[in-house]
Amino acid sequence: MNHPIIDETHDTARQSWVEAAQDHADFPIQNLPLGIFSREGQTPRGGIAIGDMILDLPSLTLTGLLKGEALDAASTGMNKTLNALLALGPAPRGALRRQISALLEKNSPHRREIEPLLVPMADARMHMPAFVPDYTDFYAGIHHATNIGKLFRPDNPLLPNYKHVPIGYHGRASTIRASGAPVTRPSGQTRAPDAQAPSFGPVKRLDYELELGVWMASGNALGQPIPIADALDHVAGLTLLNDWSARDVQAWEYQPLGPFLAKNFLTTVSPWIVTMEALAPFRRRQPPRAKGDPRPLPYLWDDSDQRRGALALDLEAYLSSVKMREAGMAPLRLSHGPASNMYWTIAQMVAHHASNGCQLQTGDLLGTGTISGPDDGSRGSLMEITRNGKQPVSLPTGETRTFLEDGDELMLSGRFVAEGAIPIGFGPCIGTVQPALTAPASR
Amino acid sequence: MNHPIIDETHDTARQSWVEAAQDHADFPIQNLPLGIFSREGQTPRGGIAIGDMILDLPSLTLTGLLKGEALDAASTGMNKTLNALLALGPAPRGALRRQISALLEKNSPHRREIEPLLVPMADARMHMPAFVPDYTDFYAGIHHATNIGKLFRPDNPLLPNYKHVPIGYHGRASTIRASGAPVTRPSGQTRAPDAQAPSFGPVKRLDYELELGVWMASGNALGQPIPIADALDHVAGLTLLNDWSARDVQAWEYQPLGPFLAKNFLTTVSPWIVTMEALAPFRRRQPPRAKGDPRPLPYLWDDSDQRRGALALDLEAYLSSVKMREAGMAPLRLSHGPASNMYWTIAQMVAHHASNGCQLQTGDLLGTGTISGPDDGSRGSLMEITRNGKQPVSLPTGETRTFLEDGDELMLSGRFVAEGAIPIGFGPCIGTVQPALTAPASR
Repeated sequence: MNHPIIDETHDTARQSWVEAAQDHADFPIQNLPLGIFSREGQTPRGGIAIGDMILDLPSLTLTGLLKGEALDAASTGMNKTLNALLALGPAPRGALRRQISALLEKNSPHRREIEPLLVPMADARMHMPAFVPDYTDFYAGIHHATNIGKLFRPDNPLLPNYKHVPIGYHGRASTIRASGAPVTRPSGQTRAPDAQAPSFGPVKRLDYELELGVWMASGNALGQPIPIADALDHVAGLTLLNDWSARDVQAWEYQPLGPFLAKNFLTTVSPWIVTMEALAPFRRRQPPRAKGDPRPLPYLWDDSDQRRGALALDLEAYLSSVKMREAGMAPLRLSHGPASNMYWTIAQMVAHHASNGCQLQTGDLLGTGTISGPDDGSRGSLMEITRNGKQPVSLPTGETRTFLEDGDELMLSGRFVAEGAIPIGFGPCIGTVQPALTAPASR
Repeated sequence: MNHPIIDETHDTARQSWVEAAQDHADFPIQNLPLGIFSREGQTPRGGIAIGDMILDLPSLTLTGLLKGEALDAASTGMNKTLNALLALGPAPRGALRRQISALLEKNSPHRREIEPLLVPMADARMHMPAFVPDYTDFYAGIHHATNIGKLFRPDNPLLPNYKHVPIGYHGRASTIRASGAPVTRPSGQTRAPDAQAPSFGPVKRLDYELELGVWMASGNALGQPIPIADALDHVAGLTLLNDWSARDVQAWEYQPLGPFLAKNFLTTVSPWIVTMEALAPFRRRQPPRAKGDPRPLPYLWDDSDQRRGALALDLEAYLSSVKMREAGMAPLRLSHGPASNMYWTIAQMVAHHASNGCQLQTGDLLGTGTISGPDDGSRGSLMEITRNGKQPVSLPTGETRTFLEDGDELMLSGRFVAEGAIPIGFGPCIGTVQPALTAPASR
């Protein structure tokens, strides 16, 4: 099951009787991502996105149209999280996809029974798709690691372990929220470069980080590694992830144990899980290592994975200030680049994480780390774009930005694009910066 | 409620009708710690330790002897974790303590009704006391930070942020286990100092770290800091914590984002939570900062806390090898020192953690970081004791140790001792090292 088959659900000719699914940027019938939604006064439940609608999974189970594993999978949609569905693994997830694709397909004889089960996205609120037992953030974007390294060590930006170890660290599971959650500017302890003593107050260098999130379908028993050849069987799908960061806190706190309060005030994910089945047509051979780069150790090396460890996925970040929105201006694209800028594959991250026996669990979220490209225009954080605040970005209003200001709206976007496949996307991953709760310059 | 009153439950003259509670090193009637236990074939449930017995909380609720808040608190003992009990906070926890202390007291008229509800510890298995949503490890042991720093930076062992910031980082919640869980030697990627390339195999520098664990009773809403004056109201109690560490993995992986696989294969805690009420007589004025040390920023400074932020608590670590156990020898004490070697108080750690709005939750576990003293004999890890493997420890069998070997049993112990109070303790925190699952020298 490492490589879900490209089957009739991916047919470029397949269309849905849901009108808005035709040419939908994110949710054509070829996508069918999983999420948790609620209508006003309803408890959250499982759903599948199609165009501008959500198919209500618990209601679908009552129609008698789903069979076997697909029915088992949809029945978990009565829960407030997708953990039980994710835990079922690839086969029931694939069966659910195939049966729902057939029901939503233009020539389905069941349109009349399904249509009443569709909820307009405009009437629904999206929630976190799953409970997250543990959250880990990797550092797989080699150009990000290089860009950040250059700011501190111009002659030797990449550390000696980078091309051997998929570097990662533990993040905070309790502060992950679905797209739209307010980004309250945190306060923190910082020391200005010219100051003798640190002070406490609202952070001044609030930043975003453009990442992918990886949802674990199933884990491993404590002490039992996950072989790399099996790693993707443990993955349910992907989302966009914004690892909001307070650079001024980070600079002062991170030695010697890594980022802590600089990152754990909020992490935002797009609420729809694009499944491994949906993204099968977009898996690509991993770009070859640069000449002289080490071959990964055997526990991180799998030829079949390396053949298809990369993703044909374009990533973007957009900023709009209050003034831009008031003037009706389009958001400014801050960055644009391919996900192939990851040095380590998702399978390598999973295998590395469990290589010491560390227990992964259903619903665990892995961040890839910031995905930047090698060039201007493809840098996945303001710290990189503005060279740590030295080269401000100009907005179409004449405003400038070094870091995020109150009222700024930051949106991540990702689109799988490949020849011979209908493009699919994640839907938005948005956050708007709110002023700090109390704003003493220093307490 | 910041400072639970020293009341009749702490009376030095108070004795229990449970014989073994008299002069019990850990569990006299003055302690009454909370835990989760099971008998064979039973589901886990809440209990309170008294001497060598466990008082079964669910059964106690059926006697009609508990009233009001104490009954509410005990009723949560039907759950498999103490999270619901912890979430009730200090007042019900204190009421439960007072009513149970009265029932177990020598002159209680209810001995006949309570005695059948006692389960011998020898017949019970202890479990994790609570589900841990998130685990954070601090670095509050200043002599540990100095000792480790000296190994790498002899002239400047403490980093500039140490005396301003209670340094911490996120650990792995999924791999925390109660005392007794096997310590399977992990495998990992390491690079020997003389090697060109890294290799993968069983770690060679397996170490322990002597820490305290802090159990959170209640947390905070996302975005809402916890003022330091309120911080201890959010704490339920303490345990011992062993932060097992693979030093060879740590040295190779930790730059730039901190420890990851070097630490997340296992963390062991003592299974009984010694409550804030039980340790009230052992709270002490925090030792004054050394001359020239900075005064903490206001968000980390509370006079009332500083008066009683330290603990009259002796901590020890013991090692016994297979040969020592076969020869019937007593374990070797590796270290012994007071918990007052923490530079930051528990209240400071909690207030700092939430100062950026990071959401803490019931059941969250905070490690203090390794607590070492300034002298030989009080160092809380083998890395410190053996100067990173350069000065082996001699065992009474003639064996030597630089780091832990397969079969070694490592035990942490902690005892609250103060004039005018009956000493109390945590019970053991033990782990025995098991061979790596598969042992290729390098794959």
